[in-house]
Amino acid sequence: MASMASLFIKPRNPSLSSHKTQKKPHFAAPIKTSLSLHSNPTRGRIRISCGLIEPDGGKLVDLVVKDAERSEKRRQAQSLPGIGLTRVDLEWVHVLSEGWASPLRGFMRESEFLQTLHFNALRLGDGSVVNMSVPIVLAVDDAEKSRIGGSTAVALVDSGGDPVAILNNIEIYKHNKEERIARTWGTTASGLPYVEKAIANAGNWLIGGDLEVIEPIKYHDGLDRFRLSPAELRDEFTKRNADAVFAFQLRNPVHNGHALLMTDTRRRLLEMGYKNPVLLLHPLGGYTKADDVPLSWRMKQHEKVLEDGVLDPETTVVSIFPSPMHYAGPTEVQWHAKARINAGANFYIVGRDPAGMSHPVEKRDLYDADHGKKVLSMAPGLERLNILPFKVAAYDKTQSKMAFFDPSRPQDFLFISGTKMRTLAKNGENPPDGFMCPGGWKVLVDYYDSLAPSENGKVPEPVPA
Amino acid sequence: MASMASLFIKPRNPSLSSHKTQKKPHFAAPIKTSLSLHSNPTRGRIRISCGLIEPDGGKLVDLVVKDAERSEKRRQAQSLPGIGLTRVDLEWVHVLSEGWASPLRGFMRESEFLQTLHFNALRLGDGSVVNMSVPIVLAVDDAEKSRIGGSTAVALVDSGGDPVAILNNIEIYKHNKEERIARTWGTTASGLPYVEKAIANAGNWLIGGDLEVIEPIKYHDGLDRFRLSPAELRDEFTKRNADAVFAFQLRNPVHNGHALLMTDTRRRLLEMGYKNPVLLLHPLGGYTKADDVPLSWRMKQHEKVLEDGVLDPETTVVSIFPSPMHYAGPTEVQWHAKARINAGANFYIVGRDPAGMSHPVEKRDLYDADHGKKVLSMAPGLERLNILPFKVAAYDKTQSKMAFFDPSRPQDFLFISGTKMRTLAKNGENPPDGFMCPGGWKVLVDYYDSLAPSENGKVPEPVPA
Repeated sequence: MASMASLFIKPRNPSLSSHKTQKKPHFAAPIKTSLSLHSNPTRGRIRISCGLIEPDGGKLVDLVVKDAERSEKRRQAQSLPGIGLTRVDLEWVHVLSEGWASPLRGFMRESEFLQTLHFNALRLGDGSVVNMSVPIVLAVDDAEKSRIGGSTAVALVDSGGDPVAILNNIEIYKHNKEERIARTWGTTASGLPYVEKAIANAGNWLIGGDLEVIEPIKYHDGLDRFRLSPAELRDEFTKRNADAVFAFQLRNPVHNGHALLMTDTRRRLLEMGYKNPVLLLHPLGGYTKADDVPLSWRMKQHEKVLEDGVLDPETTVVSIFPSPMHYAGPTEVQWHAKARINAGANFYIVGRDPAGMSHPVEKRDLYDADHGKKVLSMAPGLERLNILPFKVAAYDKTQSKMAFFDPSRPQDFLFISGTKMRTLAKNGENPPDGFMCPGGWKVLVDYYDSLAPSENGKVPEPVPA
Repeated sequence: MASMASLFIKPRNPSLSSHKTQKKPHFAAPIKTSLSLHSNPTRGRIRISCGLIEPDGGKLVDLVVKDAERSEKRRQAQSLPGIGLTRVDLEWVHVLSEGWASPLRGFMRESEFLQTLHFNALRLGDGSVVNMSVPIVLAVDDAEKSRIGGSTAVALVDSGGDPVAILNNIEIYKHNKEERIARTWGTTASGLPYVEKAIANAGNWLIGGDLEVIEPIKYHDGLDRFRLSPAELRDEFTKRNADAVFAFQLRNPVHNGHALLMTDTRRRLLEMGYKNPVLLLHPLGGYTKADDVPLSWRMKQHEKVLEDGVLDPETTVVSIFPSPMHYAGPTEVQWHAKARINAGANFYIVGRDPAGMSHPVEKRDLYDADHGKKVLSMAPGLERLNILPFKVAAYDKTQSKMAFFDPSRPQDFLFISGTKMRTLAKNGENPPDGFMCPGGWKVLVDYYDSLAPSENGKVPEPVPA
């Protein structure tokens, strides 16, 4: 992934970097010119950033303990009652540890959980409000609760029994799953992927507290180098002198319609007076449902798209967003946007039916296609974020390429849905020329070829999303 | 109801009243001393109030058309497509017309509906936020939608076909009942009373717009004189020189535990430095479930309680809150509190499990008993309201009266739940002396005597609430 590797942060002299930033002339009108001082205790350096949007709560949370304290914390963890983490739990520890959910400093206590369910927002001590729409919670069962007893801290351990983190000043409260599901998804229908994966069989208690993560979370799957933390992304945007950062959340292969949209967004931002808008192409890397294209294949596909020059590597940062996916539509899109503020994005591209899927029981989409965009534009705590609605792109048969839909000549356009795209790829068929770069398309075909056919010789029909 | 009749607003010389208010010396420290000018166009007078909490949005909404315009509006309504109102719809028109839901000026459009479902709050044009937790919406079915066609206004008509109101600048949008129910109640279990009454069989569309109500809503049930509007209540509190107003929402008979709590609240407010705290005893008067004691009987019971001197008529205003009941626990308690701000209350007494009930399917309470209080204390738009948590009162056997529970001698206390109280009354049994004034108790017994026994000779077991 040469083209993406070049997008990464390289070690540099921090004092030089600071001087350079300080000496940089003021940007053009639209950007913020306030200077803010960030210190990153785990890395022992001071960085001065100019212009990037402030993280929620004013300071990016970093819950990874300092190098010097690591052995001591590991010893301490071994003396505490241990709570086993599932893969999804570990992904949330990762999310929390790097401050994607700033100012949250650990799994939610009840007051945070209730505010999230009822208001999609948290009120801070100073009266200000930050967005927080999906519960970031850790479930424990009766046996674990009883094992914790009167302890005020627990160790969170991975599947191998090794301590990952300490949760301090814990609070244990009821896990009302029905209410959590109803208020998060707006339905309690059975078959919601995240519910089946992470809630249905989880314990009847939730445990909140302050996290101390013993070392940075890694998955050793060859993709860790693509998992930039919000702090690393902010460094990268600063290094590139970005005066606007526009985030594009995705969990699907990139086709030329997406690319057109991203290129066009940069053009619009330049027109607005920004000098150097940078794209954060930010595939979701945590839990996704079984019929989504897996992260490793998506990353290969994204690589091809960059290699083919569909997106400009100079103004694009590709990185993995470590969050698990809820498929909770208008509720979840707020989380996707809020987390990107913490990574330095001040523009967010919102698509049709973001984080949506089919109703698990009824024959309809679970969410109204427009609600994600509407809810996002009204969400508490996201007032600072500029929401860019997705312009509809479709295949223009007259030009043999993806173009913005022109309602005056609808007969010229072909809509190729995610479902259609995946069905073509799994059947080894080609989309029309110009729909996706050939290298990217081949990755998709290879992925579906790699799947063992199911019993009746057919790959299961993907769920549209 | 002599004792309550004396609590009503009497006609008075508005200019005298204004002068009196203006000349009044400043109150003691805790109250607001800003003067605000309210004009009430339907009554053609100016009132200057001192000290009462501002209504949400700064100005109390009044949607009743002026006397002079009434005939013209009635004529106009007759030319518009007509939408039939159910009894519950009419209660919401009443609520909206008098500004209980200020600054809402009519049934919700989609942006208000979505903000209510997701955030329990509305963001106003100036960026400020008001609480709004239950959807106030009007459903129409396919046939009505098609009859409305391209009209931009509709007439809302009562069961006799007479126009009640005009809804202007309408917006029709999808009524996703499952999502509405899930996000409002935190469950979609069948058997939720309001859902069965007002949602399950309602149309698949919602119609929002700005209301013009042709004349004040009356029910002609002998209780209209107890239905004071927020403006009338504010007048009354001003007339009484109230420097604090504490609201007590109820939909049950008043027992001496309630009375103790209300008397004790006044005592605490006096201790805090208020000179004249006034109680708004505010029984809910709209739709309630079948096994609740009907409004007319509750009003008789409240009258006896006042006659018996359990509450001081000098410092108590009894009035009917016209809202229907959702039984939506922590979501609904916000509405109950917010509406009382608009009526001038700056203190709100919140009980255990407010607006709660049993889960309609499972053998447990639908809501955690503490969540109402917690959610209320964190709710957006209610920051100005002082929340007074209910102190637990129980029957103290050593004193033969209701007293605050003393955890050091639990064996001395008897807890008499609403369910227990109603079961005793319907069996014609007496509670312990001192639980409720005898006149009030007799009303309850009379009510249950008046019910025709069901087929097997037993009155149905009331649902605890």
